[in-house]
Amino acid sequence: MKLASLPHGRDGRLVVVSHDLAWCADARHIVPTLQGALDDWARHEPALRALAEDLEHEMIPRLRFHEREATAPLPRAFQWADGSAYVNHVELVRKARGAELPDSFWHDPLMYQGGSDDLRGPREPIVLADEAWGCDMEAEICVVTDDVPQGVSATAALGHVKLIGLVNDVSLRNLIPGELGKGFGFVQSKPATHFSPVFVTPDELGTAWRGGKLNMALHVDLNGQPFGRAEAGEECTFDFGMLIAHLAKTRSVGAGSIIGSGTVSNRDPDGSPGRPVASGGRGYSCIAEQRMIETIAGGTPTTEFLKWGDVVRIEVLDDHHKSVFGAIEGEVVKP
Amino acid sequence: MKLASLPHGRDGRLVVVSHDLAWCADARHIVPTLQGALDDWARHEPALRALAEDLEHEMIPRLRFHEREATAPLPRAFQWADGSAYVNHVELVRKARGAELPDSFWHDPLMYQGGSDDLRGPREPIVLADEAWGCDMEAEICVVTDDVPQGVSATAALGHVKLIGLVNDVSLRNLIPGELGKGFGFVQSKPATHFSPVFVTPDELGTAWRGGKLNMALHVDLNGQPFGRAEAGEECTFDFGMLIAHLAKTRSVGAGSIIGSGTVSNRDPDGSPGRPVASGGRGYSCIAEQRMIETIAGGTPTTEFLKWGDVVRIEVLDDHHKSVFGAIEGEVVKP
Repeated sequence: MKLASLPHGRDGRLVVVSHDLAWCADARHIVPTLQGALDDWARHEPALRALAEDLEHEMIPRLRFHEREATAPLPRAFQWADGSAYVNHVELVRKARGAELPDSFWHDPLMYQGGSDDLRGPREPIVLADEAWGCDMEAEICVVTDDVPQGVSATAALGHVKLIGLVNDVSLRNLIPGELGKGFGFVQSKPATHFSPVFVTPDELGTAWRGGKLNMALHVDLNGQPFGRAEAGEECTFDFGMLIAHLAKTRSVGAGSIIGSGTVSNRDPDGSPGRPVASGGRGYSCIAEQRMIETIAGGTPTTEFLKWGDVVRIEVLDDHHKSVFGAIEGEVVKP
Repeated sequence: MKLASLPHGRDGRLVVVSHDLAWCADARHIVPTLQGALDDWARHEPALRALAEDLEHEMIPRLRFHEREATAPLPRAFQWADGSAYVNHVELVRKARGAELPDSFWHDPLMYQGGSDDLRGPREPIVLADEAWGCDMEAEICVVTDDVPQGVSATAALGHVKLIGLVNDVSLRNLIPGELGKGFGFVQSKPATHFSPVFVTPDELGTAWRGGKLNMALHVDLNGQPFGRAEAGEECTFDFGMLIAHLAKTRSVGAGSIIGSGTVSNRDPDGSPGRPVASGGRGYSCIAEQRMIETIAGGTPTTEFLKWGDVVRIEVLDDHHKSVFGAIEGEVVKP
């Protein structure tokens, strides 16, 4: 089942979307919003699945689904917690500034609490007041949970994954060192986050969803050119069960919480940091990684951060080259 | 006007509460929840104020208001961002571990993004799985905003303060060093946060609300004994306008966002770190401060962190010794 929200009030109105993303059906007679569905998932899921089935068989009135019209599936959420499951990414970031990676980073996930009061839709522009802030994309996978009890195990946590989607965790790289230096995590350096047009249930992904990981390539294009093709199922040190269990160690996690994977990142098959797509590698899911590799190789980065007018596209394609979650495609604009 | 929520579904049901906290009136015919009221404050505020007026004049059906029955005014919120306005607190924390206070801390506020998916009511217990985590209270002031545009000035931000309340920002001190050492801020070391029974509009506070600060003493009792009597209007380096402007520098802030002051903290009039209430000082709004002062004085802390069975009470009294926001009073319990 694929779910999306169309513009309506602050929380959107829920629609079920066909597998091919071409059609949708109003779900408001079941539950008005996706948050409402997640608040009582056991009750609403069967009716939503029946509606999705009817949509697929053209048994009900249907509307064209246009990704550009969708808001974020959750236009605002009660929690957005972003992990760093791809330790290769973390190691590269640190290497570029000459810092060692503590061994604990391989068994204790990094995670930050993000702002969730204003989540942006797939085609909304990336609003950037100052290019000097060093705007970057971070292409990630995310999951949405129902209610998760405090102290849940990583295995049990996977049963609480109700939906899966894509994220552009926009970051302001030049604000990060100062802010992290203060020790309290990200606030100003993480502006509004963008989400894929649809979130999907785990069964929709078939065998690509296994071990709490999405075993598919994450396509990141910058200004129409391939920038990243990292495999999200590889070198993912912490699966989503482990990330949720980390978050729930000292408190419960409410229905509709969104948990992110952190920037998807692969090494090269020879063990070296990844090469650009143009050089036959899998490229990068953020500009910072490419800059780090340039820094490690040549002393200084040559790729610039995002400028006004740049366009970032993030998408996952299935075996038939069909978009699974729809695309996040945003232009960087002045406020 | 004083507003509270009584148990109903996930978001409570809105009531207006009398000045003396003795009575309340159902506000659901105006708007069902406090979040709903904040989502369209300009529309709902006049009707809510009229209802509050009628309640005060006993012109409508009224119910007894019992603080123990109230949930958090916002049982879940789309944002909870906590500042550190009282730099004295920050300086003490750092001094205890031999770290200098960077000069920037006096003009650039510390702030962290907290979990807002599960906000606890005033009489809910503080659920602590492991006493070794070093559980502590942090008594704070908070404000709730309507929609705040990105880039708002500190002065303009004050116009977006719609409600004011009290917070117990429960902290797990022994988890903090490891977690902050990872650089991404608090996740596990900040379990669920507790809120006062009522939030009040700024006019309700008269001249005590001025300059974006609450100019009243914050009463903190531990197991029935006075522990803190800090003046929240004194040594508050960053008023709430500055804290909101800090949060809104790179993104807008959604209606119903809760912004905290950080632990309220005063020096002694002679400039030294504060003395305990029992020694004639204003005491502390968290145990960590008392422990720091013990550490600075004698090398080791003697006051223990919270244990199962301990009771923390946080309250603000007006000139007539009447409770303004009601009391947060929670016992520390095993899950």
